[in-house]
Amino acid sequence: MTAPLIRTQGVTAPAGFRAAGIAAGIKASGALDLALVLNEGPDHTAAGVFTRNQVQAAPVLWSRQVLTTGRLRAVVLNSGGANACTGPLGFQDTHATAEAVAAALSDWGSETGAIEVAVCSTGLIGDRLPMDRVLGGVTEVVQEMAGGLSGGEEAARAIMTTDTVPKQVALHHPDNWTVGGMAKGAGMMAPSLATMLCVLTTDAVASAEALDTALRRAATRTFDRLDIDGSCSTNDTVLLLASGASEITPTQEALDEAVLRVCDDLCAQLQADAEGVTKRIAITVSGAPTEDDALGAARLLARDSLVKTALFGSDPNWGRVLAAVGMVPFTIDPNRITVSFNGSPTFANGAGAPGAREVDLTGPDIEVSVDLGLGTGRATVRTTDLSHAYVEENSAYSS
Amino acid sequence: MTAPLIRTQGVTAPAGFRAAGIAAGIKASGALDLALVLNEGPDHTAAGVFTRNQVQAAPVLWSRQVLTTGRLRAVVLNSGGANACTGPLGFQDTHATAEAVAAALSDWGSETGAIEVAVCSTGLIGDRLPMDRVLGGVTEVVQEMAGGLSGGEEAARAIMTTDTVPKQVALHHPDNWTVGGMAKGAGMMAPSLATMLCVLTTDAVASAEALDTALRRAATRTFDRLDIDGSCSTNDTVLLLASGASEITPTQEALDEAVLRVCDDLCAQLQADAEGVTKRIAITVSGAPTEDDALGAARLLARDSLVKTALFGSDPNWGRVLAAVGMVPFTIDPNRITVSFNGSPTFANGAGAPGAREVDLTGPDIEVSVDLGLGTGRATVRTTDLSHAYVEENSAYSS
Repeated sequence: MTAPLIRTQGVTAPAGFRAAGIAAGIKASGALDLALVLNEGPDHTAAGVFTRNQVQAAPVLWSRQVLTTGRLRAVVLNSGGANACTGPLGFQDTHATAEAVAAALSDWGSETGAIEVAVCSTGLIGDRLPMDRVLGGVTEVVQEMAGGLSGGEEAARAIMTTDTVPKQVALHHPDNWTVGGMAKGAGMMAPSLATMLCVLTTDAVASAEALDTALRRAATRTFDRLDIDGSCSTNDTVLLLASGASEITPTQEALDEAVLRVCDDLCAQLQADAEGVTKRIAITVSGAPTEDDALGAARLLARDSLVKTALFGSDPNWGRVLAAVGMVPFTIDPNRITVSFNGSPTFANGAGAPGAREVDLTGPDIEVSVDLGLGTGRATVRTTDLSHAYVEENSAYSS
Repeated sequence: MTAPLIRTQGVTAPAGFRAAGIAAGIKASGALDLALVLNEGPDHTAAGVFTRNQVQAAPVLWSRQVLTTGRLRAVVLNSGGANACTGPLGFQDTHATAEAVAAALSDWGSETGAIEVAVCSTGLIGDRLPMDRVLGGVTEVVQEMAGGLSGGEEAARAIMTTDTVPKQVALHHPDNWTVGGMAKGAGMMAPSLATMLCVLTTDAVASAEALDTALRRAATRTFDRLDIDGSCSTNDTVLLLASGASEITPTQEALDEAVLRVCDDLCAQLQADAEGVTKRIAITVSGAPTEDDALGAARLLARDSLVKTALFGSDPNWGRVLAAVGMVPFTIDPNRITVSFNGSPTFANGAGAPGAREVDLTGPDIEVSVDLGLGTGRATVRTTDLSHAYVEENSAYSS
């Protein structure tokens, strides 16, 4: 399958979906802050994956619950506040938001129950949402959505926090079905600030089980392997909704691959717009006993402050890479390790390679490769450098 | 025991020890870079703890080996190069250094074998040491040491890398025995840049086993709980040498406590001089199922970039603390957690406390307390903030 990825389209690229994004006044700046994605069917199957953090925001608790049905008609998303660590009242706010969306959609003619509405929130942890504005916004965003067939980009803009650009993509399969998606934030399972939210849509005919399989397979290889700063959000959510409007039922394999490609592209967009990024870094560990071992080692490197600051300084400091790798929880032999930057070996056979300090890392993309020389396990983690801008952005976020 | 800690004294405070520090030309800057500590006896018992990193520098491999005898006459330490990841030739360099020290000391009249000489190195990973300068320096540092009884401060200065001040301390026990020490760097087991090196001396009479017990107990509660950036060095070494010159045999309990107090004070000095530090942060987790659980949770917080950047910004961002705690590998209940900054509760009973955003963290010392409300496990980890200076210092280290 070589269908192109089109970044000017998103969640409304597949047939059967509408979306909208408005400024509800949740953000003090007056920017877009409330988004709605509606699945007009005929099918309403859905799947979701959520943060592994034990501290989970109210909207995660809610959406996880409604997803147990394998059905969704709508997703409402707000930026400007995470509604996390807000106690029982925060959960009531999420519930009230879902009820309001269901009522507004039903009034408009699309009969919907609150149990069919997922809720996602992103922003500062700990504050209650301004519910008068959220509920007023819900009415408005449904009206806005009713006005036209495509508000996908506005929806993608309305979920941005420190993102500088909206992230969306669509893949039109040659067999006449489509997968689209939008995302914000910078990670999943170990994401960056605030939250990674992603809504994927498809007009394929697919059961909730097929969607769940495709989504988990894709998330494991994409969002799970994007690690900006090792911090895991309370709000991370990735949802996949199918309308069946194409009347095409792809094979599981075809669905898996299309969802994987869309997720992979959204990941690349998240990485490129991560907080304070000046370098896009791909860390590949090969020669590990297992793929899990390789992933663990790559993640360790992606989280190492000394490796990340060195790469910010365009410094091929392979010593720090070795020191970080030395902390993996399985047995390694330093003499079998090869460390390369952008394809140039800098350490091999137990010692530094000639010219290792002169490898040019001044470009915006850096590949770090570590071959452990032990087995066939291999994994790549995407990350970014640790820059002044990262410190700046994160030292003044709540003030 | 309320014996005062005296920071103007170090490894030569106990009877039976000499030390010296010289500029051997290993550092391009011409600063002091070679130190020697000699135990003149009558006893020569010793113990050591080393990095847990699987990538270990040549001097760690060497010193670990010689320590199996439980005896040391001398420690030679250099800054200006870690001699890590330098292969078999690097190990030969360490061996040659120990041989040179043994020969020079024997010439001077203190009969010494290479097997009685520990070697410590610190600096950039990956480069061979300039052995002509190291070996020339060994002759010179023995001469320097022979000239006077106290070169403790010069020795402490000669092991500095990015340290801005030498770190030493001595404790004179009321029963007429003394523990002294010097250190450089910023951590152990999970230390900051390059290396944490520490040499402790005592004139107490103590077996190698007693020293080992005291050192491990102290390191576990001090250096093991100093975590600047989660990165673990290839060279970390803490050595404890006993001369027996006081002719006093303290109880194990008294020895444990004196060594603990000296290590604790050196830790405080290391924290205060850590790279890029603008805040000295103590993170205490209580109410955990076990002490190990508490320590793991505190370490997770100490390594969280979002927590550390928030504290750099004097921001009482308890949401990030909760999000980080949510990743502990044991089951927690967010509703039972209390988060406090400098004694002011900011999150309790599942929601933010009134005034939580106004807690004043503008001072240089910050206490973060997290009570998990589960059990009696409690531990404190010392760390620092993640500042612009940290990024600056570490993005240009090898260049």
